[in-house]
Amino acid sequence: MEAAGPWIPGLLAATEARLAEIAAAHGPRLAEHAGATIAAGGKRLRPLLVLVAAGAEPRVPAGLVRAGVAVELVHSATLVHDDVLDAAPLRRGRPTVWASAGRGAATAAGDVLFAAAFAELARNERADEVRALSRAGSALAMGELLQRADAWKRDVSRERYLHRCELKTARLFEAACTLGVLEAGGSAGDAELLAVFGRRVGLAFQLLDDVLDVSGPAERTGKHRGTDLLDGTVTLPFIIARERSEALAAVDPRAITTPERAEALCDQIAATGALEASREHAHSVVAAAKAGLPEGGAPAQRRALELVAESVVARYA
Amino acid sequence: MEAAGPWIPGLLAATEARLAEIAAAHGPRLAEHAGATIAAGGKRLRPLLVLVAAGAEPRVPAGLVRAGVAVELVHSATLVHDDVLDAAPLRRGRPTVWASAGRGAATAAGDVLFAAAFAELARNERADEVRALSRAGSALAMGELLQRADAWKRDVSRERYLHRCELKTARLFEAACTLGVLEAGGSAGDAELLAVFGRRVGLAFQLLDDVLDVSGPAERTGKHRGTDLLDGTVTLPFIIARERSEALAAVDPRAITTPERAEALCDQIAATGALEASREHAHSVVAAAKAGLPEGGAPAQRRALELVAESVVARYA
Repeated sequence: MEAAGPWIPGLLAATEARLAEIAAAHGPRLAEHAGATIAAGGKRLRPLLVLVAAGAEPRVPAGLVRAGVAVELVHSATLVHDDVLDAAPLRRGRPTVWASAGRGAATAAGDVLFAAAFAELARNERADEVRALSRAGSALAMGELLQRADAWKRDVSRERYLHRCELKTARLFEAACTLGVLEAGGSAGDAELLAVFGRRVGLAFQLLDDVLDVSGPAERTGKHRGTDLLDGTVTLPFIIARERSEALAAVDPRAITTPERAEALCDQIAATGALEASREHAHSVVAAAKAGLPEGGAPAQRRALELVAESVVARYA
Repeated sequence: MEAAGPWIPGLLAATEARLAEIAAAHGPRLAEHAGATIAAGGKRLRPLLVLVAAGAEPRVPAGLVRAGVAVELVHSATLVHDDVLDAAPLRRGRPTVWASAGRGAATAAGDVLFAAAFAELARNERADEVRALSRAGSALAMGELLQRADAWKRDVSRERYLHRCELKTARLFEAACTLGVLEAGGSAGDAELLAVFGRRVGLAFQLLDDVLDVSGPAERTGKHRGTDLLDGTVTLPFIIARERSEALAAVDPRAITTPERAEALCDQIAATGALEASREHAHSVVAAAKAGLPEGGAPAQRRALELVAESVVARYA
């Protein structure tokens, strides 16, 4: 990521340090829970997007770091709540807060992280930034609501699934881009141009994540294949596979009750070619994200944004 | 509340209208869940506190209403999450979101309300206000975390209990006062003076709420007596009663597993005089709140603040 700007690695390190500081600021118990979640949060793609969306070397690096930290905290908060709702024992191969501390502690830990996100962002003294993040936070929760409402349903459409991904994932990627542009002094119009990019990258990210749940390997995801199926979450590979196979169309999602059954179903889904079709969909979304980047921006930033989009695909290659 | 200022009833009505608008803004499903929670939220004591803390007739009434709405939304969000964690079927005699829509929908509904609170407050363009609210939101969650950590414990001390009330309840009352002062153009120093008042009123509120759980009647609370005991939540009446009765000191909170056992225990607690002692503690906190009001304020505002403090006591008389 040096290519995106020589200041980026330093700011990512500052993001990491601040996240650790916030995790430690709420007492030892929360430090353990929040710290574990933040640590398990992955590759910091969202803070990276904030930094790259900002473009040139920032005049106020601290403001940009705060924006990235805030986005990552909202992401971490929803991870904790998702794990509670899914009763998920593991995330990236480590015990979840839910598993190690229980439902109550995990729900509260998520709320603390959520509140901390807004406290952090408020320090930028920018109401438009707070608004962008709270809208994304709201969309995330709405997406979760939709997922619960659609759980175990036979007739989840592609459109419905894509709308859910939009809410659940894409809108926070969008917010990351918006925050980067705004904090760098860009206008709301500038922000809108990159917002579309962020939304598409986020959608591709979720699509590929859902493919990985079916394809495995479990060593990559830290959980069994078919976890979504076991949770009643109908994703694109299953939707496509059902269009292609009468046998799969006849499967009642409620009947998928054991890990063995879920794994067997994953094999059947893969046999229809639905994984390739889903991957292709994701790749076309990434291509659209890159093609839709605004003309006339700095070439270095354009290349950096393309690299971020490609890294989402590479992650799953 | 006319006494506090002839503009107050109108602004409370505007608060109510805006809360209904926000509940309806996230689709029919959430409208139902969020609307029910907001409706069940009670007497709007927190928005009232925002309005009264502002003092004179506001120059920007909309800003004050937004602050009250934001505080009430954070309150509603935590109610939904609390009901999930307590698996509470009823709140104020109505089915909870958890009961009517399930764990997933209720957790997500709480997150939406939480995000909506910050979106609303951000419109005031005041980073200090967002900070005050996010700190309170964080404290609320920390209080909830503490409550879970202390659940079923024999040795919860008075200090520990009071600290939990501080986090769980008092800090949002404090934020209500802070927001009122800041939005009215007061300094951080002015805000600090009323913050102490808000914290005390909030503490008294929680103390009396905990007394009500033991004293009943169930028609007042919309739930069985001893619900806290059944949930493993050790409150002041039980702590005092255990100091006074060896029989009660010997009770293992884990052994309270049926509503009948909890109700019988409530009678035993009442017989020790612990309810009167708890009420007295609350009344002394209210007296301190009133006595600690800053000298030299407008007499009308002072009287209005005293009335709010007294209304907390009157609610339980």
